[in-house]
Amino acid sequence: MSLASPVGRASPAASIDPIVALTRDDMQRVNDLILSMAGSNVELIPEIAEHLIGSGGKRLRPMLTIASALAFGYRGDGHVKLAASVEFLHTATLLHDDVVDESNLRRGRKTARTIWGNQASVLVGDYLLGQAFKMMVEVGSMRALAILSNASAVIAEGEVWQLSAAKSLATTEEDYAAVIGAKTAALFAAAAEVGPVIAGADETSQAAMRDYGLHLGLAFQLVDDVLDYGGSAGELGKNVGDDFREGKITLPVILAHRSANEADRAFWRDALENGRNDDEALERARALLDQHGALQATRERARQHGAKALEAARQVPAGTSRDALIAVVDFCIDRIS
Amino acid sequence: MSLASPVGRASPAASIDPIVALTRDDMQRVNDLILSMAGSNVELIPEIAEHLIGSGGKRLRPMLTIASALAFGYRGDGHVKLAASVEFLHTATLLHDDVVDESNLRRGRKTARTIWGNQASVLVGDYLLGQAFKMMVEVGSMRALAILSNASAVIAEGEVWQLSAAKSLATTEEDYAAVIGAKTAALFAAAAEVGPVIAGADETSQAAMRDYGLHLGLAFQLVDDVLDYGGSAGELGKNVGDDFREGKITLPVILAHRSANEADRAFWRDALENGRNDDEALERARALLDQHGALQATRERARQHGAKALEAARQVPAGTSRDALIAVVDFCIDRIS
Repeated sequence: MSLASPVGRASPAASIDPIVALTRDDMQRVNDLILSMAGSNVELIPEIAEHLIGSGGKRLRPMLTIASALAFGYRGDGHVKLAASVEFLHTATLLHDDVVDESNLRRGRKTARTIWGNQASVLVGDYLLGQAFKMMVEVGSMRALAILSNASAVIAEGEVWQLSAAKSLATTEEDYAAVIGAKTAALFAAAAEVGPVIAGADETSQAAMRDYGLHLGLAFQLVDDVLDYGGSAGELGKNVGDDFREGKITLPVILAHRSANEADRAFWRDALENGRNDDEALERARALLDQHGALQATRERARQHGAKALEAARQVPAGTSRDALIAVVDFCIDRIS
Repeated sequence: MSLASPVGRASPAASIDPIVALTRDDMQRVNDLILSMAGSNVELIPEIAEHLIGSGGKRLRPMLTIASALAFGYRGDGHVKLAASVEFLHTATLLHDDVVDESNLRRGRKTARTIWGNQASVLVGDYLLGQAFKMMVEVGSMRALAILSNASAVIAEGEVWQLSAAKSLATTEEDYAAVIGAKTAALFAAAAEVGPVIAGADETSQAAMRDYGLHLGLAFQLVDDVLDYGGSAGELGKNVGDDFREGKITLPVILAHRSANEADRAFWRDALENGRNDDEALERARALLDQHGALQATRERARQHGAKALEAARQVPAGTSRDALIAVVDFCIDRIS
């Protein structure tokens, strides 16, 4: 049984299938709501929204909201609206992120900004944010609104911080933890916490689900960082080396750079800050990460966060919802095992 | 007395002084709250926020929120938080607008994007939106949240629409009314409506204040359109001809173009769509507007909206708050009389 399986070892239940099965019906309603709330007489809005919505993401965040509400016995349709809000917050962030990072591809497809331009991406992102808050208001839970509005401010704050300070090899491991805590884990945490909130569960349960989402989000991001230097394109929906070519400072790089000699530091600087990032450079980067055990160390940190997420999940009432939440953590970690 | 003064004739009470005096203490608290909520350990955020906040705007929108709450006897500090939220929604819109319009100057000062770049402007705008919703949540009025979140979606939708369809001389008067209804008047309407909402006033009062804000916003924008072809830089904080040079299709242009001959239509196309907008072109534009009575007709529409705003204001309980709300309308209209 996956609850008992040692963290980091592949378990039969390490899969997103259980959460997909658990949330299938509700996620169909989430998808319908998303399409309806992304609708507008202004044609450009559904056009861009459908491009993003059809981009093949796993919709993990809204599934977390659905599963965490079901885990605490929620009955009603507020979880569907909150799940759609969570996906809109995420989608708006992606739209704005791609503008800020000048990204041309996401999951192997052209980004909205390369098709419709930066201007439309900024404004459609704003529209989706407004629609997200409208849906939250309909649910009527002031506490859920507080959690999600706070997450949206934290995400933006993390992005500004990354923009102003963190795109440099001087970034420390602590800095990086703060950035991914804000940019990725804050929304995972909020998505999971609002479930017990609308189910009327007690504060301990709310805190447990917040911790679950937070550590799952951190593990998720660190695993992604590892896979970018080691996975295959099919697995990731992006190509190995995307982060490298975009000059992203991720934890593996921070760890390798920290213990590098002068020549290797110059290499990292050239590659990530000055854009000398061809295939040959990528090979050297991978060799250096290997030499310093940087991917291994990042994996280890991901496993630690996975363990904390599992610990939090143990506070959820036993049942298929808890099993599904646990299997997601195992799945996330097993991708790098 | 301004209530009885015929619309469009300058009256002694036509001034923003009464609303400034009425809201002075509360606006000081709004300003303090704005500075505190624009704070962040990420230095770039307060830097950019203070640039905008110190830009010398009249803060008319938050003053409307304060005055409309006071007009219905509100006691508490929710109006201060909602007023600060309204200003943040407005500020976030300006930040994103300047990116979308590639504007370099606003009120004669460099825009945030020219100093800190488009990326920071997008992200700090997102941060302010998140902080705005956090403040609204603190007030605890679900109805106020619904009104303001709806306004924020409507504003963005209007902007996307303008981007995709309305930057062309094919824009009709009806199209333009829809755009300024969304881009300008929706926030004025929401700012005024939340006052009676948190004061616990009845639905008739809420609807009256919404109408007041809506028509004041429409009048305000139309007056701005007129002044851009006729006012002085000091009065506007922008230079005469700014709209013209930015290729903005405003009501005066739509009216003049509608009844223009082929040669004049070619001129408008060249000037506004192809950027042939030097001083000589501006002079010809002003002559054409004059010839077609386009500024006069726009003034007339502004007056009609002013009259509707005054009619709505008459439903407010008599007192200094109502007098202040009325004087704002008179002030707005008198700028073009």
